[in-house]
Amino acid sequence: MPRSVANHRQAVVELLAGAATIKGNRRVPLLDALGKPLAVDVHAPLSLPPFANSQMDGFAVRSQDIPDDGGQLRVAAPVPAGATPTALKAGYAAPIMTGAMIPEGADAVVPIEKASPGTFPDPTARDAVVDLPAVAPGTYVRNTGSDIRKGALALAAGTLLGPAQLGLLAALGLATVEVPEPLRVLLVTTGDEVVEPGEELTPGKIFDSNGTLLEASMIQAGLDVVRTGISDDDPAELLAVLDSFTREADHPVDVIVTTGGVSKGAYEVVRQAMAGQPVDFLPVAMQPGGPQGLGTFNGVPFLGFPGNPVSCLVSFEMFLRPALSEVMGTPAPRLVQKVHLAEPLSSPDGKHQVRRGTVAGDGILRMEGGAGSHLVHALARANALVQIPGDVTELTAGAEVEVWML
Amino acid sequence: MPRSVANHRQAVVELLAGAATIKGNRRVPLLDALGKPLAVDVHAPLSLPPFANSQMDGFAVRSQDIPDDGGQLRVAAPVPAGATPTALKAGYAAPIMTGAMIPEGADAVVPIEKASPGTFPDPTARDAVVDLPAVAPGTYVRNTGSDIRKGALALAAGTLLGPAQLGLLAALGLATVEVPEPLRVLLVTTGDEVVEPGEELTPGKIFDSNGTLLEASMIQAGLDVVRTGISDDDPAELLAVLDSFTREADHPVDVIVTTGGVSKGAYEVVRQAMAGQPVDFLPVAMQPGGPQGLGTFNGVPFLGFPGNPVSCLVSFEMFLRPALSEVMGTPAPRLVQKVHLAEPLSSPDGKHQVRRGTVAGDGILRMEGGAGSHLVHALARANALVQIPGDVTELTAGAEVEVWML
Repeated sequence: MPRSVANHRQAVVELLAGAATIKGNRRVPLLDALGKPLAVDVHAPLSLPPFANSQMDGFAVRSQDIPDDGGQLRVAAPVPAGATPTALKAGYAAPIMTGAMIPEGADAVVPIEKASPGTFPDPTARDAVVDLPAVAPGTYVRNTGSDIRKGALALAAGTLLGPAQLGLLAALGLATVEVPEPLRVLLVTTGDEVVEPGEELTPGKIFDSNGTLLEASMIQAGLDVVRTGISDDDPAELLAVLDSFTREADHPVDVIVTTGGVSKGAYEVVRQAMAGQPVDFLPVAMQPGGPQGLGTFNGVPFLGFPGNPVSCLVSFEMFLRPALSEVMGTPAPRLVQKVHLAEPLSSPDGKHQVRRGTVAGDGILRMEGGAGSHLVHALARANALVQIPGDVTELTAGAEVEVWML
Repeated sequence: MPRSVANHRQAVVELLAGAATIKGNRRVPLLDALGKPLAVDVHAPLSLPPFANSQMDGFAVRSQDIPDDGGQLRVAAPVPAGATPTALKAGYAAPIMTGAMIPEGADAVVPIEKASPGTFPDPTARDAVVDLPAVAPGTYVRNTGSDIRKGALALAAGTLLGPAQLGLLAALGLATVEVPEPLRVLLVTTGDEVVEPGEELTPGKIFDSNGTLLEASMIQAGLDVVRTGISDDDPAELLAVLDSFTREADHPVDVIVTTGGVSKGAYEVVRQAMAGQPVDFLPVAMQPGGPQGLGTFNGVPFLGFPGNPVSCLVSFEMFLRPALSEVMGTPAPRLVQKVHLAEPLSSPDGKHQVRRGTVAGDGILRMEGGAGSHLVHALARANALVQIPGDVTELTAGAEVEVWML
C-alpha cells in the first residue's frame, strides 16, 4: 500500500535530523544572516534605551517647577543628542533634541511646539526665558530599559532574521550573530534524454529544467547547492559521481538529491545505482510526485525525486522544504490559505493530488493547466499549490480548498 | 497642512521613475535572476513538449490494432527516453519509457500495469507477445506544444522570477535572461549620538540600528546598497560624503537615503546639508515617520527618513518599497490582510498610524509595543504593520483592521 504524504514527510524529517545536528553553527556578520534562523538564544547585553532620553525636540524640565497654569523658566545650555548633559538646576529648562539624554534632575519634556517663543533661543544668548505649560512627570521621556532590559531574552533561537531582527541585534551593539551552518546538498539530474539549456537540442531530447528549478528552490531555502552536470542513464557513471562526493570526498556533502530514474521503467538509473545501499523506492499516495526514493548512500541522506519538473517541484515543496523548516528552522513554512474554486474539479481516489493554481485578490482560485506533471509553463503561471486530499474525488465550483502560497 | 500618505508615496514613485528608466537591463545566468523581475517579454523558442512523448512507462501502440475486448500484439524494440525510435509497424507494441518519443504510427500508450505480462520482456528476447486492453487514441500521449507552442508568450515582462519561472526558461533552452539593472542606493545614517555596533558605547550614545535595518530591507528589495560610515552632525562632512558619491563620482549612485536630521530641532544635519538643493522637508500625516525629506541632491533622487528605527522601517515600507514595486517591478507588494483586533486601540486624529502587531493563525491581531518609534525590540517580535487611517481614533476589541504582512 502506498505511503501517506504525512508519513513520507516524517521519514524525510528523520532522515535529515542527524545531518542537521552534526553541522553545528557559525558566527557571521549581521547582514550575512539575513533570511537565516538564529541558532541560539540572544539575551540583551544592555538595556534599550541605554539611558532615559527625550522623545521630542523641546525643553527638559523639572515638572514641579511649572505651576498648573504654566510658568516661565530660564533657558539652560542646550542638550544635543550624543552629549552627557550637566544636571538641570531648579527654575531652568534645557533645550533638548530627540534621543538626547535627559539631564539629571529633569523628569519631563515639553515639546517645542508648546513653548513660547516656539523656537529655540540662540545658544549664545544669555538670560533667555521661555513660557511653558504644566507637564506631568514622565511626559515624552523614554525610560532606560522601556523597550528591553539588560539580560532579558532579546531573540529566541530559531527566530528568522529579517530586517527588524537584525536591526534589534545592531541596537544591542552586536556586530555578528550565530546561525546554523547550512546543509550542503548534491543535486544530480539524470536522463539520457536531457541536455543542458543553451546546448543543441537533437531529436528525442529535452532541456533540463529540473536542475534550475530545484537549485533555485534550494537556494531560497538556504541550502548550499553543489551541482554536477547531467548524469546519463549509465548507473556506473552515476555511481562514480556519487562516490566522489561522499566516500571519496574530504568534506562529503550532507544530502544527495537526484531527479528521475526512480519509477518502474526498464532504465531506472537511480534505482540501479542505489543497489546494495539502504534505500527504499516506494510509492507515496500523491500525484504528481508519487514515486520517491529515500535512504542513505555511503551514509549520506539520499532523496530520489521523480523526473518531471512539476513532480520535482511538488516533491521539494511537500517533503524536503517542510522537513528543512522543521529540522533547520528555515525556510519559513509556506503560508496556508483557504480559498474557493472558480471551477469544478475532479481528482483520483486514494491519492493526495497537488494541483497548481492562481489565487486572485478576491480569494478565488483558478487552476493553471491540468494534472500533467510535464506542464512547466502552467506551473510558471501559478502562485499556489492546491491540496486535494486522497478521499476527495469531486469538488464543485465555489468549494473551499486549501492552498499553499508559493 | 501635512501631506497624505498616498500623495507622498506618489511623489516617491515620480522621483524614482526617471532613475529606473535610465538604468536599463542586463543579461544574467538564470540563477542570478532568482527573485528578480523579468525585464522583457520572452517568447518560446521551441514548443513544449518539443515532440510527442509518453506520459507513462508502458507500450506504445496503434490504438486501432487492439479490439474493444483487448488483444495480443508482438513486442517491438523498446523505446528509451532520449532515443529517436523507428516507425511502429502494424500489429506491434513498443515498450516505451516516460518521456520517450512516441514512434511514428503509434497514437496511444497502454501503461505497463495494464499489460499481461505486467513486466517488460528481456530486450534480447525474440517473438515476445503482450496482451493489452483497448485504448482510445491519444491516451497517455503528451502532444507537441501541449504546454506551450513555439512563438507563444512564455513569460511577460515584469514577471517575478522564482524557481518555476526559471525552470520554464531552462526547459525552453535558455541559459540567460534579461533583468533590470538594480538601482544603487547610498545609505547614510547620521547623528552625533550614534556609534557602530561592536564599538564601545559611551554615555549618551546609542548603537546604530538604522543602517542594518535599512540595508537588510534594501537587499531584500533588490537594491545594490552602498554604505558610508555614520555621518556625525557636521553638515560640511555630510556634504563632502554626498558630493563624493554624486557630482565627483565616475558612476554616481542612483538614489540617496539618509536617516535622521530631518525634523525641527536645532541640529538637523540633513536639512542643513541640503540647503540650496531642490529638496522639500515636509510633514506627512503619518505616525511614526511623519517628518520626511524628498528631492534631488546634485540631481540624484534623495529621500530623508527620520532617525528612529521604527520610523525608518515604516518609511521604507510605506514609501520606498511600494515605489520600487511600481517602478522596478520588484519587490512583490506586501500581502494585505483583514484581521481582527485582540484588544481595543486608540489612535491620534488626522494622522495615519502604522502600529506593529502579530497576526496569529486564528486571524487575531495582537499589538507589539506601544506607538513609540524607538521600540525596536517590539518591532522585532511583530509580523505585521497595522494600518489605522487618519480619521479613525478608537477601535474596539474585535474590530477589523488592515495589516501588511512583513
